[in-house]
Amino acid sequence: MITTCFKNRLEMLVFQPSKYYLFGSRLQHTLQKCKCRASLCHWTGSSYSPHPSSHKQSSRNLHLANSYFSCKTIKRSNLQVHNVLGDVHDPDAIRRLFNGLIRQDRASLARSITLVESTHPQKKKQAQLLLTMVLEYFRNSNDHHLKSSRTFRIGLSGPPGAGKSTFIEVFGKYLTQSGRRVAVLAVDPSSSTTGGSLLGDKTRMIELSRDMSAYIRPSPSTGTLGGVTRTTNEAILLCEGAGYDVILVETVGVGQSEFAVADMIDMFCLLIPPAGGDELQGIKKGIVEVADIVVVNKSDGDLLPAARRIKAEYTSALKFMRPRSKVWKPKVTQISSKEKQGIQELWEIMENFKIKTFTSGEFLRKREKQRKLWLWSHIRDNIMGKFERHPQVQDLVSELEELVTEGHITPGLASDFLLDRFIQDPVVEK
Amino acid sequence: MITTCFKNRLEMLVFQPSKYYLFGSRLQHTLQKCKCRASLCHWTGSSYSPHPSSHKQSSRNLHLANSYFSCKTIKRSNLQVHNVLGDVHDPDAIRRLFNGLIRQDRASLARSITLVESTHPQKKKQAQLLLTMVLEYFRNSNDHHLKSSRTFRIGLSGPPGAGKSTFIEVFGKYLTQSGRRVAVLAVDPSSSTTGGSLLGDKTRMIELSRDMSAYIRPSPSTGTLGGVTRTTNEAILLCEGAGYDVILVETVGVGQSEFAVADMIDMFCLLIPPAGGDELQGIKKGIVEVADIVVVNKSDGDLLPAARRIKAEYTSALKFMRPRSKVWKPKVTQISSKEKQGIQELWEIMENFKIKTFTSGEFLRKREKQRKLWLWSHIRDNIMGKFERHPQVQDLVSELEELVTEGHITPGLASDFLLDRFIQDPVVEK
Repeated sequence: MITTCFKNRLEMLVFQPSKYYLFGSRLQHTLQKCKCRASLCHWTGSSYSPHPSSHKQSSRNLHLANSYFSCKTIKRSNLQVHNVLGDVHDPDAIRRLFNGLIRQDRASLARSITLVESTHPQKKKQAQLLLTMVLEYFRNSNDHHLKSSRTFRIGLSGPPGAGKSTFIEVFGKYLTQSGRRVAVLAVDPSSSTTGGSLLGDKTRMIELSRDMSAYIRPSPSTGTLGGVTRTTNEAILLCEGAGYDVILVETVGVGQSEFAVADMIDMFCLLIPPAGGDELQGIKKGIVEVADIVVVNKSDGDLLPAARRIKAEYTSALKFMRPRSKVWKPKVTQISSKEKQGIQELWEIMENFKIKTFTSGEFLRKREKQRKLWLWSHIRDNIMGKFERHPQVQDLVSELEELVTEGHITPGLASDFLLDRFIQDPVVEK
Repeated sequence: MITTCFKNRLEMLVFQPSKYYLFGSRLQHTLQKCKCRASLCHWTGSSYSPHPSSHKQSSRNLHLANSYFSCKTIKRSNLQVHNVLGDVHDPDAIRRLFNGLIRQDRASLARSITLVESTHPQKKKQAQLLLTMVLEYFRNSNDHHLKSSRTFRIGLSGPPGAGKSTFIEVFGKYLTQSGRRVAVLAVDPSSSTTGGSLLGDKTRMIELSRDMSAYIRPSPSTGTLGGVTRTTNEAILLCEGAGYDVILVETVGVGQSEFAVADMIDMFCLLIPPAGGDELQGIKKGIVEVADIVVVNKSDGDLLPAARRIKAEYTSALKFMRPRSKVWKPKVTQISSKEKQGIQELWEIMENFKIKTFTSGEFLRKREKQRKLWLWSHIRDNIMGKFERHPQVQDLVSELEELVTEGHITPGLASDFLLDRFIQDPVVEK
């Protein structure tokens, strides 16, 4: 698989057989055989040449580089140049954005995340170009595996009243003071669907938001859980591109968001207050099952006995749950964000989790699995959008809805009818 | 819109302009103009001729009938015969099933519901043919509006321990003894995904299951919430075709199923035990918001004081909720299934709800809206299936997954690539 830039187009070459290691001239030959006027590409062992250049120049570059590249296969029958992205508007701007991002410029990171959150078709293409560059950057860095292991994605969930903001403030400061760079992403589809908004995340974490080693991103303002999942995955990648080591993904512990988040992070941390009964009704039982660590916050002063009791309750409850890892048993720990106690111990447990899962291979396997889930979340997210925007569907849907409403045809028939129109009439979206 | 049967095919004619009232000869002319060798059809004021017959016979039938039919429009550009269902296997069997169904034969109803629950492509087509016949039957019955108003779909939800089975048994017997026919459908996607199964519904309701005016259908054994929604909608329609007046749709009050059910029924009834705190943790707060009536069960003996307190709590809680109907304020009532108390009062409240919403027009508007939702549930349910079965997608998906997993391309690009293949290459499924 080679992704090529040519005249603002990002294209894909699909090759057979298995692994080619082509040197300059042979690549040129192959490209010509494919009737491809591509400028280039991804190849290992050489720097990425992002600027659209002419075919001739590009071929010469290839000659000069005389570098090999590995090319993934799909099927011989698919040997063709697929235009996937089409025209990308102003690729130079994206290049500048990318350069800013990897220079660890916070404004570039902020603009990059805004770009991936956009639902505008042109901006979506630009976002894909940017993300492709970031993936490229990771792949071309010599310490690829080191890179994967360097970053740590932590999911954080808890009911209202658990003290999530104060915890993030204290935990974040602890990490930055020990030389780490921390990004905090908030996932909160519930506030976006009801239209109401929680307190701005930045105003909740005053000290951390002033810290130059920390980056706080408030909740995305758009749409569906699927959409939020997609953009959060992409925001995580961008934060890692901008050199952040620890990515905290925060959800409010209601709705389905925490299960979506569990598919995006390395370790899931459930923060609870030292209270039972009514106050914990907000926590769905399923969340405890996905937690790798349960943190009892506010373990100080009058609440200390309650916190101890809650810790004991969760410790015994976790014993009965089916383990999801072969090398890690979920732990319960007590902290006090207010008195800054237990923070270092918590981080040690987290690092221990990372070392254990990384050594056993679970860590990287999980990330690979998550990328696959991310792909399917993308597909589900996009397919209904494409369906609704399809001209024939748009023409027919309201009248078919009417026929269904009035009981003239069954919803099943109407749905088959619309899906057939959708699939049979090719429409290439601009 | 005319749906035509011809040589085992169910086809659609799409006409312009608005409403045609065609008499025999003119219909024949129109059909010939459309190059349609259709046998027929839906027409109002005449009986449904289901048997596939030759064009000639059919035209003569039309002449003889000399009846008019109304035909809905879509667009002139779409003036064509669309083969929607393709070949339906053994339509005569479906006709026999339909005849059994409207004769109120329980075995036919059971087999009909099994048919709509099937995921086999051929059976799905047969199911659509059957459902089309049932819709036809409703539309051709003279008292169409009366029919809609005659049936009453009641959603029933509640946490484990609320006594749902006992309630259904007692409530169902009350209704059958007052001359009504009752169908009970269970929706329980949670038990199907975990693979575990609750107690068989029939064993839970011994008396009612022996009652010839009652029909109890256990949970469907297949799949996703979307699938369950679709088949439950279709099962409701079939029960109504088999002459049941009251359709009880039961969910266990966990997961998302009760929200799906709220989009299928006329009135939502939440059953709760007289207990607070821990026992009610299972009820999600959102369910109370969709309830039209809250029923405090087990209001007898020692539990009476607790039941009164719970009733008062819910009565005051409901006051603060945004009303969903202009003519109905959610009520709270106490019953005892064990002592058969409060059942008649409950039914009077329910009938009152129906009269009020029917008079204001809300009842039928809600049903129309629900049919639209049913259509979209069908579309969402089918579109991913079609995507996954698409040959090009099947060819490419595993290698693209691998490329995504290894970080060669972004999930966004891979998803666009697959969706383009899916949309651009027409594949007609058999």
